[in-house]
Amino acid sequence: MASTLKTILFFSIFTVFFLSRVSSKPHPLDSLTPSEFLLVRAIVNQSYPTFTHKLSFQYVGLEESDKQVVKSWLSEPSSQPPPRQALVILRLNQQTRELIVDLSRRSVVSDKLYGGFGYPTLTAEDQEAAVDLALKHGPFLASIRRRGLNISEVACLSLTIGWYGQVKTNRQLQVKCNYLNGTVNSYLRPIGGITIVVDIEQMKISEYVDRSVIPLPKAEGTDYRASMITPPFGPRFNAAPPKPSGQTGFKLDVNVVSWANWKFHLAFDARVGPVISLASIYDAEKKTYRQVMYRSYVSDLFVPYQDPTEGWYRTTIFDCGEYGLGNFAVPLEPLNDCPSGAVFVDGYYAASDGKPVQIRESRPDISIVVRMVATVSNYDYILDWEFKPSGSIKFLIGLTGVLQVKAVPYTNTDQIKEEVYGTLVAGNTIGVSHDHFLTYHLDLDIDGDVNSFMKTRLVKKQVKDKNIPRKSYWNVEHEIAKTESDAQIQIGLNPPELLGVNPNKETKLGKNVGYRLVPGSAARPLLAVNDFPQIRAAFTNNNMWVTPYNKSEKWASGRFVDRSRGEDTLAVWTENNRRIENKDIVVWYTVGFHHVTCQEDFPVMPTLSVGFELKPINFFEYSPVLKTMPPQHLNWSNCTK
Amino acid sequence: MASTLKTILFFSIFTVFFLSRVSSKPHPLDSLTPSEFLLVRAIVNQSYPTFTHKLSFQYVGLEESDKQVVKSWLSEPSSQPPPRQALVILRLNQQTRELIVDLSRRSVVSDKLYGGFGYPTLTAEDQEAAVDLALKHGPFLASIRRRGLNISEVACLSLTIGWYGQVKTNRQLQVKCNYLNGTVNSYLRPIGGITIVVDIEQMKISEYVDRSVIPLPKAEGTDYRASMITPPFGPRFNAAPPKPSGQTGFKLDVNVVSWANWKFHLAFDARVGPVISLASIYDAEKKTYRQVMYRSYVSDLFVPYQDPTEGWYRTTIFDCGEYGLGNFAVPLEPLNDCPSGAVFVDGYYAASDGKPVQIRESRPDISIVVRMVATVSNYDYILDWEFKPSGSIKFLIGLTGVLQVKAVPYTNTDQIKEEVYGTLVAGNTIGVSHDHFLTYHLDLDIDGDVNSFMKTRLVKKQVKDKNIPRKSYWNVEHEIAKTESDAQIQIGLNPPELLGVNPNKETKLGKNVGYRLVPGSAARPLLAVNDFPQIRAAFTNNNMWVTPYNKSEKWASGRFVDRSRGEDTLAVWTENNRRIENKDIVVWYTVGFHHVTCQEDFPVMPTLSVGFELKPINFFEYSPVLKTMPPQHLNWSNCTK
Repeated sequence: MASTLKTILFFSIFTVFFLSRVSSKPHPLDSLTPSEFLLVRAIVNQSYPTFTHKLSFQYVGLEESDKQVVKSWLSEPSSQPPPRQALVILRLNQQTRELIVDLSRRSVVSDKLYGGFGYPTLTAEDQEAAVDLALKHGPFLASIRRRGLNISEVACLSLTIGWYGQVKTNRQLQVKCNYLNGTVNSYLRPIGGITIVVDIEQMKISEYVDRSVIPLPKAEGTDYRASMITPPFGPRFNAAPPKPSGQTGFKLDVNVVSWANWKFHLAFDARVGPVISLASIYDAEKKTYRQVMYRSYVSDLFVPYQDPTEGWYRTTIFDCGEYGLGNFAVPLEPLNDCPSGAVFVDGYYAASDGKPVQIRESRPDISIVVRMVATVSNYDYILDWEFKPSGSIKFLIGLTGVLQVKAVPYTNTDQIKEEVYGTLVAGNTIGVSHDHFLTYHLDLDIDGDVNSFMKTRLVKKQVKDKNIPRKSYWNVEHEIAKTESDAQIQIGLNPPELLGVNPNKETKLGKNVGYRLVPGSAARPLLAVNDFPQIRAAFTNNNMWVTPYNKSEKWASGRFVDRSRGEDTLAVWTENNRRIENKDIVVWYTVGFHHVTCQEDFPVMPTLSVGFELKPINFFEYSPVLKTMPPQHLNWSNCTK
Repeated sequence: MASTLKTILFFSIFTVFFLSRVSSKPHPLDSLTPSEFLLVRAIVNQSYPTFTHKLSFQYVGLEESDKQVVKSWLSEPSSQPPPRQALVILRLNQQTRELIVDLSRRSVVSDKLYGGFGYPTLTAEDQEAAVDLALKHGPFLASIRRRGLNISEVACLSLTIGWYGQVKTNRQLQVKCNYLNGTVNSYLRPIGGITIVVDIEQMKISEYVDRSVIPLPKAEGTDYRASMITPPFGPRFNAAPPKPSGQTGFKLDVNVVSWANWKFHLAFDARVGPVISLASIYDAEKKTYRQVMYRSYVSDLFVPYQDPTEGWYRTTIFDCGEYGLGNFAVPLEPLNDCPSGAVFVDGYYAASDGKPVQIRESRPDISIVVRMVATVSNYDYILDWEFKPSGSIKFLIGLTGVLQVKAVPYTNTDQIKEEVYGTLVAGNTIGVSHDHFLTYHLDLDIDGDVNSFMKTRLVKKQVKDKNIPRKSYWNVEHEIAKTESDAQIQIGLNPPELLGVNPNKETKLGKNVGYRLVPGSAARPLLAVNDFPQIRAAFTNNNMWVTPYNKSEKWASGRFVDRSRGEDTLAVWTENNRRIENKDIVVWYTVGFHHVTCQEDFPVMPTLSVGFELKPINFFEYSPVLKTMPPQHLNWSNCTK
């Protein structure tokens, strides 16, 4: 009934020992324990014996006490904690019921029939039942034979089907199948042209259509296991893992984590996964922990696919609400998913037996970083170039240092009746508002000198096919920038995808090889364009510019900047609107931040980080990580399951 | 003449040994070496002996060969490299000259007088000269006496003054002074009310105004040195640093770095700092390195201050063009600025002697991370909560796993004449376009349950004072959201700053304590709002919603989601437009990504990461990092300068 999964808690760089967990009275926000799950099951089975009822547990989780009850217990933790209760959602004789079970009173204290449209989170059994029905469906077996395939190599998964305006809806799932034969990757050889919808309440196929036979994608190249990769290999990753030194990092008192100035409660839920509660931070000045966040978790995760055709239009999934994110938590791989010395915390959820074991493969995410720190008077800039084996280059900027401040007569904000152009960050001290605009020169040579710049825009489309009840989807429109003015881009809502491509090089699948610029923080100047500083910094008027390569155009602000009049900037060079298609091109990208100062910036600012990424898009035939060899001898003794 | 600075090169997690650097023929993109700097100086001094000329080196850097010359050498690296040349910018007898010096021919091959408006990058001498003049200026000494201060405790810095429409501009700097007496932080006790402008060519004060005496901010709390911090202390950081294991990570051949599948050239420039050139990546399929980026660096860094008053309006700085980012590079602190096993690479620039030594203090950036990985069918979600001692909580989402694909008859993009709703990622395989929207439930309790939500908008303003030649600045407008509809926010260009504040708690300086939500990637749905999936996911129509706390409103998608009709979502709950001011409130924040698939996503996607941050804003009286105690016994033997 209770299956063990793991969440993980670790220091981002540093190592810690395993901690023995102290047993004590439960915290009101603790997740249900394995014995509590068993007790809930026993109590519910007493009300609804399985020999007279068709019963399944769709969700079992902590029924949280009222916030004020929790807070009042927190203020006096030696007092009796509030009663432990569970929220139980059942499918019972084809109806949905919501129960509240009191664990101390060992009784069901509330039991309500749900009368609305929706259905509860699916169990593994629901999903398996749908797949089993499909795999035994005569017409499906015939379809498999018609394709010359072997049913024993067919692997299926079930997907929710949403709602498309139907007046009456049953509890149904669609089933999609892939062909294994030669691969362990059960997602990449789709058997196309078939729609299967299963009623998981009536336990029957409610819709079956075999529209057309579509060629089956090859097995070759779909295996991701390092042990199965065939030559040619990429270079082996060289890396020397840290060895744990044996120091303890943080304190874990049952489910309450204390570390440095932070304290929070950690719980786990079948629907939403990790739940972080009661986050509070120690204030050295006030000598007390101060509240920040009562609770946080991923409330839902919506994944609409953008294919409005029969067989695909229904695929618009709610991962938390329909499946349960916690239900899909997987054990973490000590070598790859966590640094040395991670502490693993078990999570539990009520589930059925027989959940299929998933093959899991992971590779360590290692990268090499070039860093410079420049202290320009009061400010420190940390500039990182991070190269990743995936082919990405991440450009990261950290800002720290000391503010530029001005003296004022005020010691409290309430005294300020005039504009002061900043924030009172200490007595008599205004941290003046300001911006930082970093303009990167990126001379891209993607698979050769001659490149083009492509704007890729996602466009909302109406579904034309009247047989499809779905109304909309998005697709991708491409535009090659012909001249400099086509590539002057201000990044706002729904920014275009920005691609440098080589128009003369294609992948085997016929795509022009390219790199995408993934913007990060892209604030824009708020000065008037005709103000003198902005005339001199006119190169920040756009987040992006593209120019034909010109050896003398090195510095966006011009060669002689001190007291300049903006006569020699990127904005001036591009006035000729030169051609940039199929040329050696340079991309200029500006990262901006507006700095509204605050008291935490005094006397030294905590580091603020932003950045952007260059990411290969159809540059490689397949993931470049696949064939790189992981480091040898990774042995993190402290980091085992 | 040549001063040693360091850039750093390291693995983000793993450790490496120091490498001995191999001597060989210079790479055409190598920075100038110390002996080359000396040679340049000798050659220039031959043309312009200092006993007959007033001469200073404003900039000396590599004069890069033409790109085609470099590339042709690269294709045959055993051939003679192109001639080593330096670009030299001089101030000579009050004029600016640009010279090209050929190092092999030991001669000046080009020497041009610059006739434009701007002036070159400042030297340390220029800046010190300005400060020295100010500190000896009679009226300034009188101003200091008038304030009852001691001139020996005054520390000044010089700042560029820009251009504000003047017809004639001289080479001038402004000087701003701080009072040390009791602090080492030379930036936080500004002596206000004084304007000093210095002509650094004429070597005289060109403008001096003492407008008014403004109270001097206190020294107390400005010291940032751990050794000088007084109680009360925060908790000590606990962390166990990794010990280097002694494996070599990457290869450094003079200035060419090879690691995993990457190769690039590393150089250093006085004006822009690190220069990464010739980045190329090994393709296991093609068995060769493929070009990605010829060159990248920070071209300029514009920092306009937003105070348009006399004494401040001029402060609109170009860090690269006016000062030189490389000129301000600082040695990195092995314990704090880099992980164990970092390799330090020296950088050099031509400078004057006598540059003041800067006091440098740094703290390690340690954090604790809670991680869960959920494998929802084909997709893997990595959910991280990272708690930082600065008071920030970073929410990070990593996406990886296997695509949902559909079978098609095509094996090359050129064959596709119909809409296929995705990208051909392998033969017969379309990776279908889709989105991911994660909606976080953030039940903020900032210093107590009762909070308000404040939108802070930066607004462009016109300068009203006719005596000020600057035209514009921005300031901050605040608005408290009264009801739910006031807090429904779609994040676009120039997003508001989003603050949760406690309207009943103030800092000593009179600010309401708060936390700011710093958005990350904030893509919005592109489905029609009246399409069925979007009706069910209407909670993603805004990036942000704020609701009054209601125990039953846990899941944005409603309690029963499978086949639901959107009747029980966050979008429905908020239709009543409830009051949220001065209430227990919950923030709902949606992180979105549009996934246009690419060949690199096959067979397993490289991890894509996005996130957002909750950051204290006037929650603490001063930086909470200041009084936390750094970890003891940090001893990274491999990480010394």
